[in-house]
Formats: sequence, C-alpha cells, structure tokens
Amino acid sequence: MNDLYRIGLEANAANYAPLTPLVFLDWCADVYPERLAIVHGERRFSWAQARERSRRLASALAARGVRRGHTVSVVAANTPEMIDAHFGVPMTGAVLNTINTRLDAATIAFTMDHAETKVLITDREFFPAVSGALRQCEVNPLVINIDDPEYDGPGELIGELGYESLLVGADPGYQRIEPTDEWQAISLNYTSGTTGNPKGVVYHHRGAHLNAIGNILTWNMPRHSVYLWTLPMFHCNGWCFPWTIAANVGTHVCLRRVDATAVFRLMREEHVTHFCGAPVVHNMLIQAPAELRAGVGRVSAMVAAAAPPVAMIEGMEQIGFDLTHVYGLTETYGPAAVCAKHEAWDELDIPARSQLAGRQGVRYLLEDGMTVLDQETGQPVPADGQTIGEIVFRGNITMRGYLKNPAATQDAFDGGWFHSGDLATLEPDGYVKIKDRAKDVIISGGENISSLEVEDVLYRHPAVALAGVVAVPDPTWGESPRAYVELTPGGQATEAELIEFCQASLPRFKVPRSVVFCQLPKTATGKIQKNILRDWARSADAIE
Amino acid sequence: MNDLYRIGLEANAANYAPLTPLVFLDWCADVYPERLAIVHGERRFSWAQARERSRRLASALAARGVRRGHTVSVVAANTPEMIDAHFGVPMTGAVLNTINTRLDAATIAFTMDHAETKVLITDREFFPAVSGALRQCEVNPLVINIDDPEYDGPGELIGELGYESLLVGADPGYQRIEPTDEWQAISLNYTSGTTGNPKGVVYHHRGAHLNAIGNILTWNMPRHSVYLWTLPMFHCNGWCFPWTIAANVGTHVCLRRVDATAVFRLMREEHVTHFCGAPVVHNMLIQAPAELRAGVGRVSAMVAAAAPPVAMIEGMEQIGFDLTHVYGLTETYGPAAVCAKHEAWDELDIPARSQLAGRQGVRYLLEDGMTVLDQETGQPVPADGQTIGEIVFRGNITMRGYLKNPAATQDAFDGGWFHSGDLATLEPDGYVKIKDRAKDVIISGGENISSLEVEDVLYRHPAVALAGVVAVPDPTWGESPRAYVELTPGGQATEAELIEFCQASLPRFKVPRSVVFCQLPKTATGKIQKNILRDWARSADAIE
Repeated sequence: MNDLYRIGLEANAANYAPLTPLVFLDWCADVYPERLAIVHGERRFSWAQARERSRRLASALAARGVRRGHTVSVVAANTPEMIDAHFGVPMTGAVLNTINTRLDAATIAFTMDHAETKVLITDREFFPAVSGALRQCEVNPLVINIDDPEYDGPGELIGELGYESLLVGADPGYQRIEPTDEWQAISLNYTSGTTGNPKGVVYHHRGAHLNAIGNILTWNMPRHSVYLWTLPMFHCNGWCFPWTIAANVGTHVCLRRVDATAVFRLMREEHVTHFCGAPVVHNMLIQAPAELRAGVGRVSAMVAAAAPPVAMIEGMEQIGFDLTHVYGLTETYGPAAVCAKHEAWDELDIPARSQLAGRQGVRYLLEDGMTVLDQETGQPVPADGQTIGEIVFRGNITMRGYLKNPAATQDAFDGGWFHSGDLATLEPDGYVKIKDRAKDVIISGGENISSLEVEDVLYRHPAVALAGVVAVPDPTWGESPRAYVELTPGGQATEAELIEFCQASLPRFKVPRSVVFCQLPKTATGKIQKNILRDWARSADAIE
Repeated sequence: MNDLYRIGLEANAANYAPLTPLVFLDWCADVYPERLAIVHGERRFSWAQARERSRRLASALAARGVRRGHTVSVVAANTPEMIDAHFGVPMTGAVLNTINTRLDAATIAFTMDHAETKVLITDREFFPAVSGALRQCEVNPLVINIDDPEYDGPGELIGELGYESLLVGADPGYQRIEPTDEWQAISLNYTSGTTGNPKGVVYHHRGAHLNAIGNILTWNMPRHSVYLWTLPMFHCNGWCFPWTIAANVGTHVCLRRVDATAVFRLMREEHVTHFCGAPVVHNMLIQAPAELRAGVGRVSAMVAAAAPPVAMIEGMEQIGFDLTHVYGLTETYGPAAVCAKHEAWDELDIPARSQLAGRQGVRYLLEDGMTVLDQETGQPVPADGQTIGEIVFRGNITMRGYLKNPAATQDAFDGGWFHSGDLATLEPDGYVKIKDRAKDVIISGGENISSLEVEDVLYRHPAVALAGVVAVPDPTWGESPRAYVELTPGGQATEAELIEFCQASLPRFKVPRSVVFCQLPKTATGKIQKNILRDWARSADAIE
C-alpha cells in the first residue's frame, strides 16, 4: 500500500500520553493553585490543597500495599474525601469503587467480595450497614474512617485508622503512577440490578477523561463554574463531575444531605452556578417556599428522567432555573445523551416545549453513536416517532464491560452496540424519545402498552405527585395496567376520578383498570422502584 | 500480577472509536442541520449543506483514485472550499496539505514533490506561482480549480476541472472511511524554515480532535460562537479552528483578504464573537479609524506573538476587545500554550498587566507538559525568571514527526520532549516567558543579549511601530545589537534618540549600537523575518 505516512512517525514520550482525568487536577494546581476548589461547611480547600490531599491519600494507600489493579471501595456522602478519592485512588494505579450509601449490609458485602476490595474508606454515618457488611464479607479490607465535622448524627467509627490523621502522616509530594495505557480501569460502579446480583461496570481513564470534557461541552459550562453536589458521587462517579469540575477549574460545593433550605442557602452564599440531580431533587426545589430562594441567581440544572413531567419543566422555568435534560446509564458513565435545545423551541408554549425538551435527545458530542434498533431486524428504526426499538450506544464513553462477567458483557455489546434495555422511538428530527424499559412494557390483549405513556398522563393531574404503572395478571387480557399513585401534599383524588382522567387522553386498553394510593418505593437515587410495584401487583390479592 | 481488570474487558466496536474531528461535522449536521455553518459573501451554507459539500468533495476525490495515505494539496484563500477540504479530504483517508499562498513557484513545487501530491486544489488568484510550480515539479497531480465569485482580481484557471461542477456530479451521501486508528495522518503542514528545505509536519486524527476541543476549553468559547477567518487556514490548519468551529456548532465567517473595513463590517453584520491572528492584524484594527468600528460589540481575540507590545494589549482594551495570548508552533498544531488569566491581574495598571498577560504562559489543558529545559543539563530550569533554557512540549497535541525526515524527527524529540528552539525563563508563578529564538540571541563580549528584550524596550517608544534587533559582526565584542525600526504613520524619531531611549532601560551592552529605519520584511503570516534582517546586518557595508 502506497502510504508515505506509515513509517518513521511513531509514538514516543514527546508526542503521546495516555488520556486520563488526573491531568486536570495537575493543571488546576499548577495554574490556579490559590483558587477555591472545594467548600464543605467550615472547610475550604484551594486547588493546590486539593492536589496535596489527593497525593497524600495516594501515598498513604501505596504505603499500605495498594497497587495497580487493586480495588479501593468507598462508602461516603458528598464530602471532600470523595473528591480526594476520585484522584488519589487512581493516582496509585488502583480502581475506585464507590458504593451506594443506602444499600444493606448483604449487598455491600457482596460488592466488596466481588470487587476483591483491598481498602474500604467509610463515613461513620453508614456504620450499621458497613459494620454488618464487614462481618459478612470474605475479604478483609483495611478500613479507613471518615469523621466529618459537618456530621453530628448517629454512627460509629470502625477500627483505628482515621482519614485525616492518615493524610497528616502521608507524602504531599507523591508522584502519581501514569496509567500504562488509557484503557486501564479507573473505577468500578455496581448497577442496582432489580433481579440477580449487581453487575460491576468498569470505566477506563480514556472514557473518564472524555466524558469529563463532554459534560463541559454539552452543558456549555463557562470556566470557573461553581457546582453544587446534589447528585450522589457514588452514582456513576457523580456523572464524572468530580473530574469535570477540575477540567473546568471550577469549585465543588459539598452537601451531605439534600434539603431545600440547605440547597438554596449554599446557592446564595457560594454563588452556585450548576447542579445535577434526579427529578425528585428538582421537584423538591420547585415546591419549596419562595422565601427560601431569596437572593439566588439563575442556576443551570441538569436532570435525568425518563420523561420529565411538564410540571417540572414549567416549575424550573418559574423559579428562574435553566434546565438541561440528559440521558444515560451506569454503563455510559452517566449521561451520554442530551436533549440539545434549539432556539426555535423558545417560541413554543410550555407544554409544546416540554414535549420537545423532555426527550432523551441525541448522543453527546464525544460519544460516537446512539440510535434505536428494531429488536427483530437489528436495524435502526425509521424516524417516524412510532416504531419502537431499543436504545443503543457506541463509542468512547461506553464501559469496558462488566467485571468478571464475560457472558453479560458479550450480551450487552451484541452486534457492536451497547444495549440499554430502554425502548424508544426516533422522532423525525432524529431525537430519541423513551417509551419504556423493555421489562416495563405491559402486554394486554397482544397490544404493547408503554407504562411511561400512562404515567405521563397521570402526571398531568394536579393532585398526582408520583405515579408508577405496572402490569397485573389479567385472566382475559394476559396483563392489564395498574397505577400506583402518591398524591401531592394536600392533593385529593379518587380512583374513579383518575381513571376518568386517563380515559380523556388514552385509548381504552391503556387506561389503568385500578389505582392504588400509597407512598411509592424509591431507590437511593430517587427513582421509583417498579420492580417492587410489580411484586405488589403480582401478589395483589395478598396485600389489598 | 494480581489485576482482576486485565481480562474480559477488551475494546470492541461498541466501546471504542478512534478519535477524529470528523465526528464533529456529523454531530452538527445531525443535530443542528439548519443552523448557519459558513458565510462567504453571498454564499451561506447550513451545517447539513456543509456536510453535504464535504461528502461530495470526498466522493469526487475517491472516484478519482484518492486513497488512504495519499496527499491532497490546497493553495487557497480563506473560503468555503478550505473548510470543505478540512473534512472532505480526511473523509477519504487521505491527508490534507494546505500550502502558504504567498510562497514562490519553486517552494510550492518542492512541497508537492516531497508530499507526493496526488490532487491539487487551487484558487485562480494564485495562478502565477501555482502554474510555475506545476511546470517545475516532478509529480503530476490532478488539478481542481476554485473560481470564487467573491474574487474579481487577476488570475487564471488551470486545466479543466472546476471545484463547484465537481461537487455537482458527486455523491452527497458518501460514507466516510473511518481512520484505521486515531494515529492516522490527517494533515501535513510545511514549516517555513529560514534555512534549508521546509519540513513537513504530520498531524494525526487524535491530535486534531483534542486540539479542536482544547481551543474551546482554553478560550472558554460559548457554544454557537461566530468565528471570523483573519488567520490563514493554510497556517497550522488555522490552529485547528476549522474543526473547533464544528465542535462548537459555531459559524465560520470567511474572508479572502484582511483589511480593517472588511473585518469591522463582517463583525457588525455577522455578529462575530471570535477571531485569531498575528499581531499585525490586531495592530491594523487598533489603528483603524474609530468610525469603522461603529456597531461592533465586544469580540474575543486570540493572538500569538513572542512578546505583544504593551501598546497592542492596551489598544485592544481600548477598542473593547478581549485579548487572549497563546503560543505554539507548527509542530504543536498551532497554539499549545496559553497565558491563562487571573482575576487578580485586573487590579493592576496596564503596563504591569501587559507584562503578565503577554507571556507564553502554560500548557493547554489537553497538552501534557510544557517546561523550560537547561540546554546543558537537560533538566528544568528553576522558576526564577532569570535562568534561560529551551521551551519544550510533550503530549497529545505534538506532531507525529517530520515526513520522510527521521533524523530531524529524532532531533526534535530528543529526550522525550519536543524542542521548540525558543529560549525562555520560568517565572515564579510557573509561567513561561520567551527570551528569544535560540538563533536570535546576540552574544556580545561573552554576554547573551535577548533581542526580544531590546525590541520590547523599543516598542515602548511612541513612534515605533515595528522593531527587529539582530547581531552585527563586531571586531571587539564578536557581535553587537543593531535595531531595524519601522515608524508609525506620522511617527518621528532619530537614531540618537532611540539609542538614548534604550539606555534609560537597558544595561549598556544591550543597547543597539545602530538603528536603521525601514519597512521591515514580514512573512506571509505577518512575522518579522529576522533571517532577512540578519542577512542585511551581515552584509551591512554593502547596503548602507
């Protein structure tokens, strides 16, 4: 082949470096050492201090035997130690495994055994589940305790090793270990599977680097943004924002527990410009008394929801916040799709605009592909807004695979795409719109009913705060839809009234046959647990 | 080695894609197809049309035998065809070689022979040199003519093949060829070496992707910026901005020839937000009559200069433009360093601020390393602002190497750093400040004199528009400094007056022994040609 460019132009130390988000911390500390990096209550760290803390953590871990390919697990709130860990753990070549703080002891024990955890860093708030997990698990990790001065609730320290005293004795000049290549693992995030054991999703340095930057580009974030931690950092590495805020030379504002008073106070006092979260966070802010918002400027919010209700989009506009809707999964480093906005949408009324702006949208600029595949043919569905298929992704912000689970990895990557398990249509403008999770579809008399579509109608009723629609066994139709509804504070509605309300917008076969009023079960990240609703529905005779 | 992450987690089509800037065009055309991509006089193209033009160009080239590893050369002004070529040529797997339009026939012929040019795309304005080159060169490229309706000056078409008619007959649905890997060559830029033959600097898809994004991050560019082409696209691929503007979903505003009237008119009419250029462009705008600026808003300007004079920084502030100072070389894809600003600088007076903001600064966020190495020890110099060494770079936005020149490549990458040939100090804040090109240092009585330092003093004199200081042979001291000075319009100064002016700020041995008033010779990109000044100085007896 006649290619004069193939020889004498090889990679070397001068012209190639593995992509890693660790360089962002170095840049901040080198160029803006004095600038505020982290705020947590009384504690404030500059970027020079933030790097020093991460280096000290890395040095302490390395001194205790942590090596490339080892796992360091963390059970902690959104505190500075979590940010330290996002840099300090991979600085040693090890892999960061953040664990959902609301999991029970058995699941935490399973996670640590599966990840072969060498070190566990844990906040004393989570003592009950963590101490239980340590009794049950087979691994015997070194335990490091976080005793956050901002936390005055119950909980105990485990063992002897305190996080801050560990840092004091460590080397602030620790030189990080370069990844051998950018494909090296940087973190491990377990999916909260509703059936079977959780799967360990492996991220690499390259993907973390690219998605950290992808967040800046996608959200159009100006440099030196001030980011409030309303999204748990244990969730997909906080959508990669621990690294994004370094690439942005921004400021992290930590927050242990999300409540409207604290959120608005921090927004006002720290001049917060950006935050992310599940719809439950946004709804809480919308419903908070207006006086809490006094002195808060315009803030940019990112939300991930299957179909954000019109009321939420409208509510965010009314409190003067700018909302960006994103979509992704643990397997795509958090969001890998965005409902990119168009100026023409501004001229529409709020319901019409919400219909457009509430879609899953398009791939991130730095993800290579996202489409909807027909589940029978494996080909993209037509962009007709009608034909349902499965959302798939491909590109550099898709996971390496599931740890020690080659069968699940192979399934997930079948045909050269990552399969999300979410069902959707492609709209005429090429935007993806979720119809349902594959397992949430209700099949009634041979017809597919999208539970999301029914929920979307219920959400338009003013008394409905939350709604989950699932299948109940039906002797005639196979399955029929049932709605579980949580009312707004002071809201009132009857079963007959909500059924009638649905009949006005839906074909008869999609209308719920029954409505149950209750507190809905939610995951640690605020998602409605449809698997529990399905269990309830299957054993309906027993509980009703 | 105990690394559970090493197996079962390999790259595949779903989770790995080579980095390439070509994806940015796809994203724009998929997500914002109607949005304005390119403006050139009466012609306006949307992003859908821009992709279609690039695909048509690629299809036409592929149909004529262009393959991976072939070179396509272009001699053209800043017109839409140049933007097409930045995407269309690499879409075929071929390599884009843009040629400086002010080169003579012999140099163009050398370039095409060295690059083994298969196709030449050329604008009729450059007929004299290009037709001469085609007569002299050994290769026999297919020639495609650009006949820009915005150009009504002299020049002829060569041969039969017209650019626009070529596109008409080509395939708008052409599917681009993926790079085999991201290390594949994307472009070839010849350095305008002052001695010997030009060297061909090879860029790859990975570096072009990363530097395109690096520009956005470095310049803090909001999405949908409007970029005016005052920097030649033939120069380091326009610092990668043909790709940056796609990643930014911005708008290209083309401009064949830079003059103040046209620049301000386009800024006003097209709502330009950003432009780049050599100091000569910025000075021209500063010196233009104020009425030309009427209706022009705040614009962000990027400038690359060894040491931008205080007058330029002050002048840009006075016309309300925001100036960012960058530094780099052809070998680093254009700028790879930026004088990142600090809020504290705003409180300084303009001379003090200019001293800080006019430095070469720090590495781009996406370049891995930049420092100053002691030329004897090969170690970084202390950050004392005194010790002079050579500026070096390393990382992903450093070239692959010089085409067919392994010796020069090896020299350039000696010790795992790319050697810039520029001499500088490291200041206490870690910022790099250029002292001189290695070859521009004047050695007088064993003392090194930085020609830049002397020029910097001369620039402070109100009558001095441009200054170049070089060595003349000196029987006593070996060398002594001589200044060549171009006065401002209406400016007046005598040799004695300028020498006295320098004595006020410089030690005696650094003061020019003589001052010559003249029009200074400049390169195509507006740099003072010190090699010519050196020639003049060496043959001083002959010309004075």
